[in-house]
Amino acid sequence: MNEFDRIARYFKPLAAAFPGALGLTDDAALLTVPPDAELVVTTDAMVEGVHFSAHDTPQTIAQRLLRSNLSDLAAMGAQPLSYTLTIGLTKHIDDAWLAAFSETLHQDQKRYGIHLMGGDSVRTHDANIFSITAMGVVPRGQALRRTLKRVMEPNDVYEVYVSGTIGDSALGLMALQGKKLSGATAEDIEFLKQRHYAPEPRLDLARTIRPFALAAVDISDGLVADVGHIANASQVHVTLEADKVPLSAAAKRVCDANPAMIETILSGGEDYELAFVIDARESGLLKIALSKINVPLTRIGTLKKGAASVDVLDKDKRVMMLKQQGWQHF
Amino acid sequence: MNEFDRIARYFKPLAAAFPGALGLTDDAALLTVPPDAELVVTTDAMVEGVHFSAHDTPQTIAQRLLRSNLSDLAAMGAQPLSYTLTIGLTKHIDDAWLAAFSETLHQDQKRYGIHLMGGDSVRTHDANIFSITAMGVVPRGQALRRTLKRVMEPNDVYEVYVSGTIGDSALGLMALQGKKLSGATAEDIEFLKQRHYAPEPRLDLARTIRPFALAAVDISDGLVADVGHIANASQVHVTLEADKVPLSAAAKRVCDANPAMIETILSGGEDYELAFVIDARESGLLKIALSKINVPLTRIGTLKKGAASVDVLDKDKRVMMLKQQGWQHF
Repeated sequence: MNEFDRIARYFKPLAAAFPGALGLTDDAALLTVPPDAELVVTTDAMVEGVHFSAHDTPQTIAQRLLRSNLSDLAAMGAQPLSYTLTIGLTKHIDDAWLAAFSETLHQDQKRYGIHLMGGDSVRTHDANIFSITAMGVVPRGQALRRTLKRVMEPNDVYEVYVSGTIGDSALGLMALQGKKLSGATAEDIEFLKQRHYAPEPRLDLARTIRPFALAAVDISDGLVADVGHIANASQVHVTLEADKVPLSAAAKRVCDANPAMIETILSGGEDYELAFVIDARESGLLKIALSKINVPLTRIGTLKKGAASVDVLDKDKRVMMLKQQGWQHF
Repeated sequence: MNEFDRIARYFKPLAAAFPGALGLTDDAALLTVPPDAELVVTTDAMVEGVHFSAHDTPQTIAQRLLRSNLSDLAAMGAQPLSYTLTIGLTKHIDDAWLAAFSETLHQDQKRYGIHLMGGDSVRTHDANIFSITAMGVVPRGQALRRTLKRVMEPNDVYEVYVSGTIGDSALGLMALQGKKLSGATAEDIEFLKQRHYAPEPRLDLARTIRPFALAAVDISDGLVADVGHIANASQVHVTLEADKVPLSAAAKRVCDANPAMIETILSGGEDYELAFVIDARESGLLKIALSKINVPLTRIGTLKKGAASVDVLDKDKRVMMLKQQGWQHF
C-alpha cells in the first residue's frame, strides 16, 4: 500500500466530518474561525524510546498523543476544533498497527469533538515519531494564560487549585518500566498504568472556570514545574502544601509504604490535570460552576506578591528540598 | 543548555514580532483571523536520511523546510501568517547548528512575512526530524484548490500554466548525490544545487492569479504527479507537451546531452513552482495580472472533459511512456 492509499484508508475517515479538511486531498486545509473567537494553536510531539516504549500500543500512543494536545487547549480555556497529524513511521509499522492507531484517534475525536484536518507522513529509519498541531477556539480576549489576568495587590489572596489526582501517571510509568512500587496492590498497579495511558484532558472544567480563573496551566512537566511556570510568568511567589496535593488511593498506598515517593508525585509529569488560580473572594463562583460538572478539585496552595518561586511545605510547614522539579525535554 | 534556555535563545526571537505567540511561554498560541478571511493550514515534515542528507546544512534544511510549507500556502492562494515548529534533535546537534538554523528561519520569516508562533522540541536517537505547520489567510471562499472551481462544459478550453523552470531541483539533488550530469558545466551544477537548496515559493504569483485561476497545485511530488492531482480531483483529462515544459539553460544542456533525462525532469519533485489552470478565454486577465509581478509563466498543456489522467506528448505528439510519475512518500 502506498502513501496515498494508506491516507485514504486510515486517515480520510477521520477527516470526513470536517469540510475544511477537503478530504485530505489538497495542499492545505481550510478553517473558518467565528468573528468573536480567537484560534488557540498548540503542538506536541512524541518519539519512540523517549515518550513511549515497547510497552505502548497503537492505542496508547494515539490516546496520549491526542489527549496531551487537548490538555494544552484546555489549559488555555479553549474548545477543540481540528488538528493536523505528522507521522514518521519505520518500516516495522504495518497496516494492522495503522488501523488500530487511526481507530483510537477516531474514538477520541468523537469523545472530545475534534477532527483531523490534514497532515504529513514520512518514513523514518529507527524510531517512530508522532506530532500533532491542535486548534481550538476561545471567545476573543478570554483565553486563560500562565500569566495572571490581574496584577496582584498587597492585600490580594489568590489560591491555587488542581483537578483530579496528581502523580498517578509518573507512578504508572515506573510500574511500566518494571520498577517495584511497594504498598501498591495488583489493582493499584493496573489503575496507575491506565492513568498513564489514558489521561483525561480537562476541557469541560476549562470552559467552566474560564470566566473567573486568573491563570491556568496543565500538569505536563510536573506539578511543581508547571505551577512554577505561573510563578515565573507573573513574578509571584507560590506556596504549595504537600499534604494537600490530592492523591489517588493507589498513590496514597505507595506513599504510605515509602514516604520519599512524594517527590516523584510532585515532580512527575503527564498527569494532564489543570492547575489554576482564583481570587479567594471568588471561591463562591467556583462552587456554583462546579455544581454543573463532576470534576474533583482541591485547593493546594496560595499565591503572594514576591520573588518568582515555588515553595512546597511538608506536613510540619517546613520548606521541602526537592531534587528535581520536573521533566526536562532535552 | 536545557530546553527552556535553548528556546529562549534561538526561538523566542523568531516569535517576538507576533503577539499571539505569547513569547513562547504558554501552553498554546493565539491567532486572530479577520472575519472576512479563512485560515489555510498545511503541514510538511523532513527527516534526515530521507528528505535531507549529510550534504545539507542547518541553512539549507531551514530554507527547504519553511519554503516547502510556504509553497503549500501559495498553492491555495494564501498569504502567510504564522507557523509552529516541531524539532526532534539527536545529541549531535550543537548550539552553533541551532544558531545557524534559527538565523536562517529568521531571514526567511522577514522575506516572506511569516512568524513563529509555537512548537515543541524533543530528543531523537538516530535522525534529526523537523516539522512545520504553517498558517495563512485567503479571502473567504477564494482559496485555490486542486479541484476546478467550475465544472467543464464540452466547449470549454482550459489551459495549464507553470511558473519558473521545472526539474532543476531533481537534477540538483542528483548532483548532490554524486551522480554525473553529462552536458552540465560547473556553473550549471552550482545553479542546480542552489535550486534544490533554496526553492522560491510563489506567493506573489498565487495572490495575483487567485481571482481567475480555476485550480492550482505546487510542484512538490513532480510535475506529472502534481498535475495528476488536478486531473484526479476534477475528473478531467490533461495533455502536457514535453517540449513546452520550461527548462533552465542548465537543465537544457543536461537534456541535450542525454535526452532520457526529460523523464527525471517530468517526474522529479521539490521544484515548488506553481501549476495552475485558467480558462483560455481569460488569458488576457493573466497577461494584465502578470505585468505587475516578475514571474516567468509557460503554457504547458490543456484540460478536457474525460477520464482522469495525464498524457505527456513528445515533440512528435506521441504519448510518452513514463516509468515513474513522481515521488512516493512511503
